[in-house]
Amino acid sequence: MLQTNVIILKTRPVGLPKVSDFQLTTEEVPALRAGEVLLKAVYISVDPYLRGKMSGTKVPRFEVGQAIASKVIAEVVDSNNDNFSQGEFVSHYLDWKEYQLSDGMGLVKVDATAAPLTTALGVLGITGLSAYFALLDIGQPKVGETLVVSGAAGAVGSIAGQLGKLMGCRVVGLVGTDEKAALITSKFGFDEAINYRTTPDLPAALAAACPQGVDIYFDNVGGPISDAVLASLNPYGRVAACGAIANYNDTEPALSPSMLPLVVYKFLTIRGFLIADYAARFPEGLAQLALWLKQGKLTYAETIVQGFDRLPEAFIGLFAGQNEGKMIVKI
Amino acid sequence: MLQTNVIILKTRPVGLPKVSDFQLTTEEVPALRAGEVLLKAVYISVDPYLRGKMSGTKVPRFEVGQAIASKVIAEVVDSNNDNFSQGEFVSHYLDWKEYQLSDGMGLVKVDATAAPLTTALGVLGITGLSAYFALLDIGQPKVGETLVVSGAAGAVGSIAGQLGKLMGCRVVGLVGTDEKAALITSKFGFDEAINYRTTPDLPAALAAACPQGVDIYFDNVGGPISDAVLASLNPYGRVAACGAIANYNDTEPALSPSMLPLVVYKFLTIRGFLIADYAARFPEGLAQLALWLKQGKLTYAETIVQGFDRLPEAFIGLFAGQNEGKMIVKI
Repeated sequence: MLQTNVIILKTRPVGLPKVSDFQLTTEEVPALRAGEVLLKAVYISVDPYLRGKMSGTKVPRFEVGQAIASKVIAEVVDSNNDNFSQGEFVSHYLDWKEYQLSDGMGLVKVDATAAPLTTALGVLGITGLSAYFALLDIGQPKVGETLVVSGAAGAVGSIAGQLGKLMGCRVVGLVGTDEKAALITSKFGFDEAINYRTTPDLPAALAAACPQGVDIYFDNVGGPISDAVLASLNPYGRVAACGAIANYNDTEPALSPSMLPLVVYKFLTIRGFLIADYAARFPEGLAQLALWLKQGKLTYAETIVQGFDRLPEAFIGLFAGQNEGKMIVKI
Repeated sequence: MLQTNVIILKTRPVGLPKVSDFQLTTEEVPALRAGEVLLKAVYISVDPYLRGKMSGTKVPRFEVGQAIASKVIAEVVDSNNDNFSQGEFVSHYLDWKEYQLSDGMGLVKVDATAAPLTTALGVLGITGLSAYFALLDIGQPKVGETLVVSGAAGAVGSIAGQLGKLMGCRVVGLVGTDEKAALITSKFGFDEAINYRTTPDLPAALAAACPQGVDIYFDNVGGPISDAVLASLNPYGRVAACGAIANYNDTEPALSPSMLPLVVYKFLTIRGFLIADYAARFPEGLAQLALWLKQGKLTYAETIVQGFDRLPEAFIGLFAGQNEGKMIVKI
């Protein structure tokens, strides 16, 4: 009987997740039945939003004792399903297991010859689609406007900033290291980068980098950084609230300057979104992202961690900003 | 030469405005020239948003030594303008002066026979239009949803709640006195009222009054009340940020639980608006509001303060919640 490694949620994390909140275990993979495929994980995506599912803030939540799940690229290693053949690659939300069965529902084939497999977890996956729809739909960028992106060297932020440039915006990125500052201006074409860890006065740095004020804030981080950007917004400013990684490990509600007076006085729009709600438009988004990628107008970065057992470590590393671009675990 | 009383901004208020921040003075009204009308103020609107113009938070701001201005219903007492005749009533943003000249630009005629004159400052004016467009456009009410309105006995809130009922929502109002609680449930048809000053546990009271959670929050107040409502919002909740009277007198930024994580986790939309941006749709809004008023589906309350010299006192009274419905000064 085939055995597989599994990573389960051992305890709900309190504050910053610890490796000991997870447990590596093994289980038997049942025999393949009619209509099923046997999948072998190849690349597993680790993402900040998983934190909310671990504590139950985000639903559906993970259950203690059950496997974690996220977006996975898997290879079909055996098939009793006419729709899938051995050797094909698929992507879907799957358990953190090296091997698992699937009845094929929801599996999306990934063409390994069209683009690197990992792009299906990044620029050509939910990551790229989140940047695309949040920026275009919520941000409503117009030529000449100023876009600020937080977590600008991250998976979504690095795409959002490039899309902002393609839309004709001045784009300023907020990052936590000088290496990331160099990355976003050199590789991703941001006009300016601000290292929020070393800048003595973030509001002043924002004012200097955004002489026309801020029209759009693409936020991946929340916390005090976002408080400073919100205070810099122009009238009719838009905030695409894509993530709040600075708050995901809070054990009690963080405090910020009250936003509502700003919203009233400056006619702001602050909006979160569920990327699944854009599913009907995924083909449009993916076609556009793939075209820009092919034309060289869009690029991406990846941080690949090797080894199934390092999934918890890679996930925890997101909160220390250890990734440039998309954080992926290669199995 | 005609003399007029004038109320000027003497000093920019710090914190809660004081009567001594204003000065009653007199000036001469120049002789009527070709094309001009002489206006005599009949009703003057006092509104929370004026506070921001006094401190300069809201632009265009009032200048020290200059007259305050707000929406006024005035009678044409002399006319050298073919478009306006003596005895007609007009409304416009005008100075806090008993008498003033106008070249006619922007004056809107008010038909004193169609509805009480004061409705042009309330339910059939910017007040009603703010409730109408903010609720319908930002709130996007759907039958069976739950709407919470803060400042529910106030000028805008009392209209917004009634519109919510007309849209088929469960409507819960937040007020600061038991008299107002009785008013909004009896006169305005709110399903429930919560007196936030006497409720020992506002989150619990909200949970009890909104068993299905809160889908729409029509906010006129900001501050801790709004923090509690925001925490009660359902996924995809909408916040129409119409006012933040609790914060208008803040001398330093108030703190609140950080909203961005909620926005991310619950896909919220929080939006402010400038009512002037809906100007093209004012005829639609006014026609609908007038129809409902005529049909008896909509009603309103007014708090009328008598005397030009009491304008500052009436304005300051807004911050103590001294008004039920629209606060208006009768000259």
